[in-house]
Amino acid sequence: MAGRTNTPGQSVSRRLLTVLDCFDVAHPALTLTEVAGRSGLPLSTARRLIAELREWGGLERLDDGRYRIGIRLWTIGSLAPQQRGLREAALPHMHDLFQATQENLQLAVLEGTRALCIEKLSSTRAVPTRTEVGGRLPLHATGVGKALLAFSGRGLLREVVDAGLPRMTPHTITQPGRLAAALAEVRRAGVGYSYEEMTLGAVSVAAPVLGVDGRIRAALGIVAHSRAAVDRLAPAVRTAALGIARWVE
Amino acid sequence: MAGRTNTPGQSVSRRLLTVLDCFDVAHPALTLTEVAGRSGLPLSTARRLIAELREWGGLERLDDGRYRIGIRLWTIGSLAPQQRGLREAALPHMHDLFQATQENLQLAVLEGTRALCIEKLSSTRAVPTRTEVGGRLPLHATGVGKALLAFSGRGLLREVVDAGLPRMTPHTITQPGRLAAALAEVRRAGVGYSYEEMTLGAVSVAAPVLGVDGRIRAALGIVAHSRAAVDRLAPAVRTAALGIARWVE
Repeated sequence: MAGRTNTPGQSVSRRLLTVLDCFDVAHPALTLTEVAGRSGLPLSTARRLIAELREWGGLERLDDGRYRIGIRLWTIGSLAPQQRGLREAALPHMHDLFQATQENLQLAVLEGTRALCIEKLSSTRAVPTRTEVGGRLPLHATGVGKALLAFSGRGLLREVVDAGLPRMTPHTITQPGRLAAALAEVRRAGVGYSYEEMTLGAVSVAAPVLGVDGRIRAALGIVAHSRAAVDRLAPAVRTAALGIARWVE
Repeated sequence: MAGRTNTPGQSVSRRLLTVLDCFDVAHPALTLTEVAGRSGLPLSTARRLIAELREWGGLERLDDGRYRIGIRLWTIGSLAPQQRGLREAALPHMHDLFQATQENLQLAVLEGTRALCIEKLSSTRAVPTRTEVGGRLPLHATGVGKALLAFSGRGLLREVVDAGLPRMTPHTITQPGRLAAALAEVRRAGVGYSYEEMTLGAVSVAAPVLGVDGRIRAALGIVAHSRAAVDRLAPAVRTAALGIARWVE
């Protein structure tokens, strides 16, 4: 952004987007002071931009004075092709897989160097996960992440390694060489595993959804209690991912 | 907006939102010229704001030069409480109802004087509908719309009537008095019907999802081929809607 803030128009519209950036899965509701603090904007600017967004419908005011993202932004965001085409192609297959397994399912796409969860199905019987729709997961520590990473270019692996491989549990792969070997195995097997590498007690297996051009579109993953469960479910996950791939553009 | 365009900051940030407003279910991909035309902005302004939104991730450029809503806006929009809380509460019940009926299901909320579809489940066996997630439906001609309208304040009915009751099919209720009577019947029965009033060949029944404060949160509807089918399914829809209501805030 350096050098651009001299252009008043860009600066003002960028500030509006900065207000939106304050909100995420961990911070779905914020006070004016929190928006100003998180965005680095002066309080008066934050107040004015919040008012602008409220008038438009992008923010809503709660009874306790905090602000939340409004339905207007949801409506516009639902037009994103990752959401619309992919999710519509995926949901019937996800329902079938869910009915057959009753385990947690996740559909994730790449967003920079992370996996973004765009759909999930879960039952009260399934293992609890921290994944939420709209939430991000590390690529090196999750089944969907490894499936996405293994079928992307080498450049992405370099970026992920350069950014560091944070240890999420004692089982997380934190050595670049071991991660590269694990990804080669994902390509060979057609599925990626996470053996308690993200959350203790949770094991996942995921399969890539590839477009007709061979490029990675998404990964479909299942999270279960044990290695035995995901070994048993891997063929079902792979079958569902192939079923989705037949319907994506 | 009159009188506000003299404030440069508001004007610029409002223009950015105007660019976003160009996109909807019927127009998911637009050229620069189309954005300028639909927004009324000069071409140079539209170009600059599109660049700003692309850099942020709110718009993406397709290979053919058109622009689409980007995943960044979807991620932020997914934080909207209507989407997050309501949808998460509703999906398990919708899955159950779908499994039992294999018909089209819709979850809709009020957005101004229209019903906004925030979730749908459909099977290839079900009657084709024009409803899409993120799409709007008229309140007077649909099952979900009547359920939402019947359990809202009288002011909304006045607004809807004042805006006119467009005839969607020969069966659409276009007389205010008949609509008011139909809504009284919806309140009595606890479900709203549409007998080919929106689409010829499609009949729907919907039940309201009321919050603990008694206020309307959403409507759950099912679309089927015949009046006999929806009569048979009405108790199931009502049961599912009551199930959802137990989980919404």
